[in-house]
Amino acid sequence: MKISMLLFDGFTALDFVGGYEVLRGIPGASIEFAAHERGLVAADTRMLGLVAYRSFDEIESTDVLYVGGGPGVSAALKDEAVLGCIRRLDQRSQWTVGVCNGVELLAAAGVLEGKTVTTNYAKREDVRKYGVAVEPLRYLRDGKVVTGAGVSASIDLGLFLAGLIGGEDLSKMIQLGVEYYPAPPFGSTGADDAPEPFRNAVRQFESLSHALLESVKPPF
Amino acid sequence: MKISMLLFDGFTALDFVGGYEVLRGIPGASIEFAAHERGLVAADTRMLGLVAYRSFDEIESTDVLYVGGGPGVSAALKDEAVLGCIRRLDQRSQWTVGVCNGVELLAAAGVLEGKTVTTNYAKREDVRKYGVAVEPLRYLRDGKVVTGAGVSASIDLGLFLAGLIGGEDLSKMIQLGVEYYPAPPFGSTGADDAPEPFRNAVRQFESLSHALLESVKPPF
Repeated sequence: MKISMLLFDGFTALDFVGGYEVLRGIPGASIEFAAHERGLVAADTRMLGLVAYRSFDEIESTDVLYVGGGPGVSAALKDEAVLGCIRRLDQRSQWTVGVCNGVELLAAAGVLEGKTVTTNYAKREDVRKYGVAVEPLRYLRDGKVVTGAGVSASIDLGLFLAGLIGGEDLSKMIQLGVEYYPAPPFGSTGADDAPEPFRNAVRQFESLSHALLESVKPPF
Repeated sequence: MKISMLLFDGFTALDFVGGYEVLRGIPGASIEFAAHERGLVAADTRMLGLVAYRSFDEIESTDVLYVGGGPGVSAALKDEAVLGCIRRLDQRSQWTVGVCNGVELLAAAGVLEGKTVTTNYAKREDVRKYGVAVEPLRYLRDGKVVTGAGVSASIDLGLFLAGLIGGEDLSKMIQLGVEYYPAPPFGSTGADDAPEPFRNAVRQFESLSHALLESVKPPF
């Protein structure tokens, strides 16, 4: 089973690596990282670089199309190479996966028509603008489309998809392998219950992340 | 606050990226990835490559020394460059962090003397062999040493450390930023409650991972 992760400048690393670390546990899974062209792709922080060793053009088809998010999505939304690659690979994929505002990229590419999805708690309206129904869930399947909430939801989504592909026991074995028995130190109320000052702080942090993309050159 | 993540061939990506994605949210945090020499470092799967843009020698000192794990730890345990770098940076670090069997690397470097730590559920005896006390916890602080359980525990550990550094509100804001409100699809019993066949399957998977390191060349 081939899993193709589409990277773009300014991606959020955990959106991808959470899913990668789980899906790698599926027997026979082969994961590849792709981008416009082969080479290093800088994450949103400009402090982490992942190597893409496939260009979009080199992927003829894939079993699992996987698109994460990040502040770089804003630029990718206008990037026909990214959107075209999503459109092309979705045609023959067994599963099309979106995490965080990577779901917005899927919507912009037009592959979510008639689907119900989830996405980052702060991006629901952005996705709805494409006429796609959004539910405030951690992960969600609608046909072959599997979507997840923000960033770390990539892990839960990965375990959910592993369950769909290989059953509950496989998912639980992978869960043990990555020792995913979460214990957030200050509890886990859900994004929608977070106090407004926190939501505001995260919005400001995300604005800064966008500014950072423009102004900071990666050290690699 | 400088955070230095020490990579080595055959690392497990989520051990590092989980902590990175959380700790990046600390105001003023600057994270760097280092290895023997600058260049790509291949993860245990041989399907993911992270760039190290510092060599160990280039880091004079750091505020947070961060060591994750992976099957590559077996070789790193015999690698004086890795152990020496840990020893050197620990001398002046504010925090020394170990995740998964990265904790074994810290123990082997001799920086855990008299400490109590946690580690990957399957590696507790390996760490105890160094005379270090191990508790079966998700994360644990002992003085300046902060340790975490396996792989995905890097996220909980990161939030815990962010709380120690910047307080509960900061930790909760970062938690919202990475939308960490986990919902494993098949529940969360804890590694010690996993049935023996699952534990066996993970052991086999890990043996395979070791064999993979020897036999598979990364495609980058």
